[in-house]
Amino acid sequence: MSKPVTPLLDAIASPADLRALPESDLVRVAEELRAETVSAVSVTGGHLGAGLGVIELTVALHYVFDTPRDRLIWDVGHQAYPHKILTGRRARIRTLRQGGGLSGFTKRAESEYDAFGAGHSSTSISAGLGMAVARDLARRTNTVVAVIGDGAMSAGMAYEAMNNAGATGSRLIVILNDNDMSIAPPTGAMSSYLARLVTSQTYRSLRDVAKQFAGRLPKFLYDKVERTEEFGRGFFTGGTLFEELGFYYVGPLDGHNLDHLLPILRNVRDMPGGPVLVHVVTKKGKGYAPAEAADDKYHGVSAFDVITGAQSKPKSNAPAYTKVFGEALLAEAKRDDRIVAVTAAMPQGTGVDIMAEVYPKRVFDVGIAEQHAVTFSAGLAAEGFKPFCAIYSTFLQRAYDQVVHDVALQKLPVRFAIDRAGLVGADGPTHAGAFDVAALACLPNMVVMAAADEAELVHMVATAAAYDAGPSALRYPRGDGVGVELPERGIALPIGKGRIVREGSRIAILSLGTRLAEAMKAAEELAARGLSTTVADARFAKPLDRELILALAANHELLITVEEGAVGGFGAHVLSLLADAGALDSDLKVRTLTLPDRYQDHDKPDRMYAAAGLDAKGIVAKALSALGHIDRKATGLIA
Amino acid sequence: MSKPVTPLLDAIASPADLRALPESDLVRVAEELRAETVSAVSVTGGHLGAGLGVIELTVALHYVFDTPRDRLIWDVGHQAYPHKILTGRRARIRTLRQGGGLSGFTKRAESEYDAFGAGHSSTSISAGLGMAVARDLARRTNTVVAVIGDGAMSAGMAYEAMNNAGATGSRLIVILNDNDMSIAPPTGAMSSYLARLVTSQTYRSLRDVAKQFAGRLPKFLYDKVERTEEFGRGFFTGGTLFEELGFYYVGPLDGHNLDHLLPILRNVRDMPGGPVLVHVVTKKGKGYAPAEAADDKYHGVSAFDVITGAQSKPKSNAPAYTKVFGEALLAEAKRDDRIVAVTAAMPQGTGVDIMAEVYPKRVFDVGIAEQHAVTFSAGLAAEGFKPFCAIYSTFLQRAYDQVVHDVALQKLPVRFAIDRAGLVGADGPTHAGAFDVAALACLPNMVVMAAADEAELVHMVATAAAYDAGPSALRYPRGDGVGVELPERGIALPIGKGRIVREGSRIAILSLGTRLAEAMKAAEELAARGLSTTVADARFAKPLDRELILALAANHELLITVEEGAVGGFGAHVLSLLADAGALDSDLKVRTLTLPDRYQDHDKPDRMYAAAGLDAKGIVAKALSALGHIDRKATGLIA
Repeated sequence: MSKPVTPLLDAIASPADLRALPESDLVRVAEELRAETVSAVSVTGGHLGAGLGVIELTVALHYVFDTPRDRLIWDVGHQAYPHKILTGRRARIRTLRQGGGLSGFTKRAESEYDAFGAGHSSTSISAGLGMAVARDLARRTNTVVAVIGDGAMSAGMAYEAMNNAGATGSRLIVILNDNDMSIAPPTGAMSSYLARLVTSQTYRSLRDVAKQFAGRLPKFLYDKVERTEEFGRGFFTGGTLFEELGFYYVGPLDGHNLDHLLPILRNVRDMPGGPVLVHVVTKKGKGYAPAEAADDKYHGVSAFDVITGAQSKPKSNAPAYTKVFGEALLAEAKRDDRIVAVTAAMPQGTGVDIMAEVYPKRVFDVGIAEQHAVTFSAGLAAEGFKPFCAIYSTFLQRAYDQVVHDVALQKLPVRFAIDRAGLVGADGPTHAGAFDVAALACLPNMVVMAAADEAELVHMVATAAAYDAGPSALRYPRGDGVGVELPERGIALPIGKGRIVREGSRIAILSLGTRLAEAMKAAEELAARGLSTTVADARFAKPLDRELILALAANHELLITVEEGAVGGFGAHVLSLLADAGALDSDLKVRTLTLPDRYQDHDKPDRMYAAAGLDAKGIVAKALSALGHIDRKATGLIA
Repeated sequence: MSKPVTPLLDAIASPADLRALPESDLVRVAEELRAETVSAVSVTGGHLGAGLGVIELTVALHYVFDTPRDRLIWDVGHQAYPHKILTGRRARIRTLRQGGGLSGFTKRAESEYDAFGAGHSSTSISAGLGMAVARDLARRTNTVVAVIGDGAMSAGMAYEAMNNAGATGSRLIVILNDNDMSIAPPTGAMSSYLARLVTSQTYRSLRDVAKQFAGRLPKFLYDKVERTEEFGRGFFTGGTLFEELGFYYVGPLDGHNLDHLLPILRNVRDMPGGPVLVHVVTKKGKGYAPAEAADDKYHGVSAFDVITGAQSKPKSNAPAYTKVFGEALLAEAKRDDRIVAVTAAMPQGTGVDIMAEVYPKRVFDVGIAEQHAVTFSAGLAAEGFKPFCAIYSTFLQRAYDQVVHDVALQKLPVRFAIDRAGLVGADGPTHAGAFDVAALACLPNMVVMAAADEAELVHMVATAAAYDAGPSALRYPRGDGVGVELPERGIALPIGKGRIVREGSRIAILSLGTRLAEAMKAAEELAARGLSTTVADARFAKPLDRELILALAANHELLITVEEGAVGGFGAHVLSLLADAGALDSDLKVRTLTLPDRYQDHDKPDRMYAAAGLDAKGIVAKALSALGHIDRKATGLIA
């Protein structure tokens, strides 16, 4: 794979080098940056469309602003690959999302140019306002710039921050990067509003602009405005909604035209006063034909051929959990017309698009708005519907209070379909669903299930559909199933009952969810060493299968719990049950295997499981060490 | 205490009776309802100002809408006492917030007229939209009305719901109850916007209104509009911001004038089409002079004398935790000018107002906007400041993802001051801080402290101020301290270290936080029975004091953990540590005492602790039963 020829880019080791170039070189820098971004992502896979959309904006921002002294915050951070290339990380850009390599998002620990780490949407204005206020308190003079997409503007958090910024009056520049497309096509009234702004604006004459801005522009700029008619071309106003919220609105601008971007960014940089919103219109996937032509604009891609755009999706022997969920949901929806589905801007990501194709009116995409999604689902449940609220594990964190206060407390039967529960490989710690079991199993009234394989997932969807006495959650991982046969239809499981998968006598491995296959492997290896091992699949983290757990405790020397989640989750609840039942009073040995108490950097899933001790090898090692410890004790060798 | 004379109200057993009255009686009904509300709350204490502000609105809504078939949702629900009086609960209204009595908020289990339970702010539009969509799917024809305060509009959740409602186009009536005052004076750009709407509106002529509305009004109404000039008086438009979000805006109206409210609510009820926002201006505390005169408009009151308005605050021997926190924060702020404080619309409630009096520029009230509050704090921390983000336990649930993703993952030293952690008495389960330890202790990088008394709280504030290596949280309860002497200044505690408070040999009670005094009482009683008992104060739920915990386990027959939090918290983490250290392999007995796995209804705190088994008696009983269990085992009597 030949790398693109990039003589200008080759000379840019940091933004200071970029700023030393004449403005006339920047179009070529942008071209080279685009080619280099395409080339790098063709090797690594990752987010491509978003980065291609902000090539010119990235160049312009680093050219006009004095980064890293001026703080540049990229919302979500998946559009920041070009930014990484310009900020000293070009040599490592082909390690993106690989183990030990660059993160696929901005990350403070990675570079001083990443002013704020990201991964989840809509945090940038809040963080930026905090930094702007800190600057004011410390009497510093740097500028803070937050770049946020139009999709991210549907999140309440962005509104909360705008509302506060507008009242605070601190100097903050928000670049609204409007590509009219978050991941899925956009939804919501804000999105329509932005579309109206873009289509209804008429270019004003320079004289009008000058008059309007006269009071706010520094004199030298005002003069310049009066002189150069062209300069004003991009300088339009409108955006009443933003102005009502206390922002000075500028735009919409062509985000791929450096002749517009540069003067206006300079102007805004030097403008005194409060928060400014610069509305920039860009095209996701811009400048790479296969991306522009694709429906999703190459939002997230595998490695691909630069010439043809063909992605090299690895072959899989099993369907992805997401697809299995989507089809199981559709099957249930066909049987019960009270079943509806809710997604927060992720119809494809969660698989509810499969149901939407057949029942478009029963699937609701509420935008990037998890808080609303959950309470909206609660409203549907209060009226007798059976909502499946499908949200990734880490994004459900956005709606924790709504789960507690609006759903669980009222015992409303909202079904939470929690995809991406557990480790997520290349997406790294911002997207790793480690905390859902700990956060949900402590809630009264909740039912919490975890699928051991894709067939179990089908049954759990049926279980959730059937269980109407209160809220329930089912968690399942990113990626492909393990290859078991799928049942013809899902059968509702008895609530709070696990199952014995393998009978043994000395060791019991009690697995919740995804690690069951590894637990089985471990059991075989232990049995081969003469340690007869039972394996059980708990199925439920709440309510726990008291009978099963006490029986395992009573009939084995060692009980090991295994889960793909943080400490404080399933294993901790099992221990609480055992303690309070008096089952720990004897010399039963118990060990819990969980994700480690640290954020694991992105890597290949297998390596991450090994590091976490959650593969067969880790389970065997834990069992042997637990028994060996006792053996030493028996011979008086314990410390 | 004499009850007011209320002949009309006496005849209203349900809204149907109200609707049978002639419109001309409603002003008197409102008067009687106001007097009855004042009288009831003078006995029970509770929220008064908010209810008084919506007396006329409550009457008008139940008169115009066919409740409970039409769904009426009160945001937060603390303004719903008059609604409770009109909806069959008048006989029990003097049991408000008492054990076994009416809830201080709306509650589905309490009445079919409470369409959605509340307690936390800004949920009503989401729930209402869910109900409206459910109605459309089920082809029903009822109306859904959500009443939301102006303060609640600063929350992102309300915006998310508006954004979705505006795009969905489902018929939903949102009543914006604008009293220009949430609990504290309002903040934020939305608040200024509403104030501008109210002050800048000019009454339009009827002819203008009619013309404007002609396309949307049913013919008969249009004719009526043309006929009755007076009718149009309240019918003004403006509210571009809401209209840009897809709402049809009506207002502002005088919310205490039934002649305006009734025709306009009828009109809006009968109007076809999408979501409508009716902007109603009310006065918090309206019609009760002492409330109108008070700064907080009698937001929340103790029992009081109706004539004088004098509240009978119970005398306390110790300062409230909130005040102790506020003063300790101020003391630290005096020593370190990098300390700043952030509150989400609760400066008095959290005690940061004490610091704000001295350092107004270092205390930030961001509005009801917990998500933003946390990430704003993260931005401040990223720039070297030391933010104390003071949010009640249950409200911090609103910002769980921000704690995980923006703070803990980046190891930013935001200090979470978590008031109202544990049971909260009369406020009931919506406000009981049960889940913070479970939700936070599972997060890598977090430090989680819990104060055993008010002196400990002072030290923990100092600890948080000093600890700059990552995020920390300190939890403390609602109400007054236990009466210990306050230290002259806080001393930073060693991170992750507990303390032995009482030495014993057979039983060890390991307490986290507030139940330490009860643990001490229990220890004395156990010692009196010949069971020598150690008491330790863990101080930290994370990191755990491994050395202390293993020593307690090694040197006692029974270890009991005690915490005022849900299962999955401190005790569960202690068990995980013990299990994995092999400390459970022996015949050590362990028991965990937590809040029960159900939502406890409001009651007097002592009764709630007793019901939870978290008082001295409960601890003693648990200890005896654990030891008795073993004794039975020793004699072969175990089942």
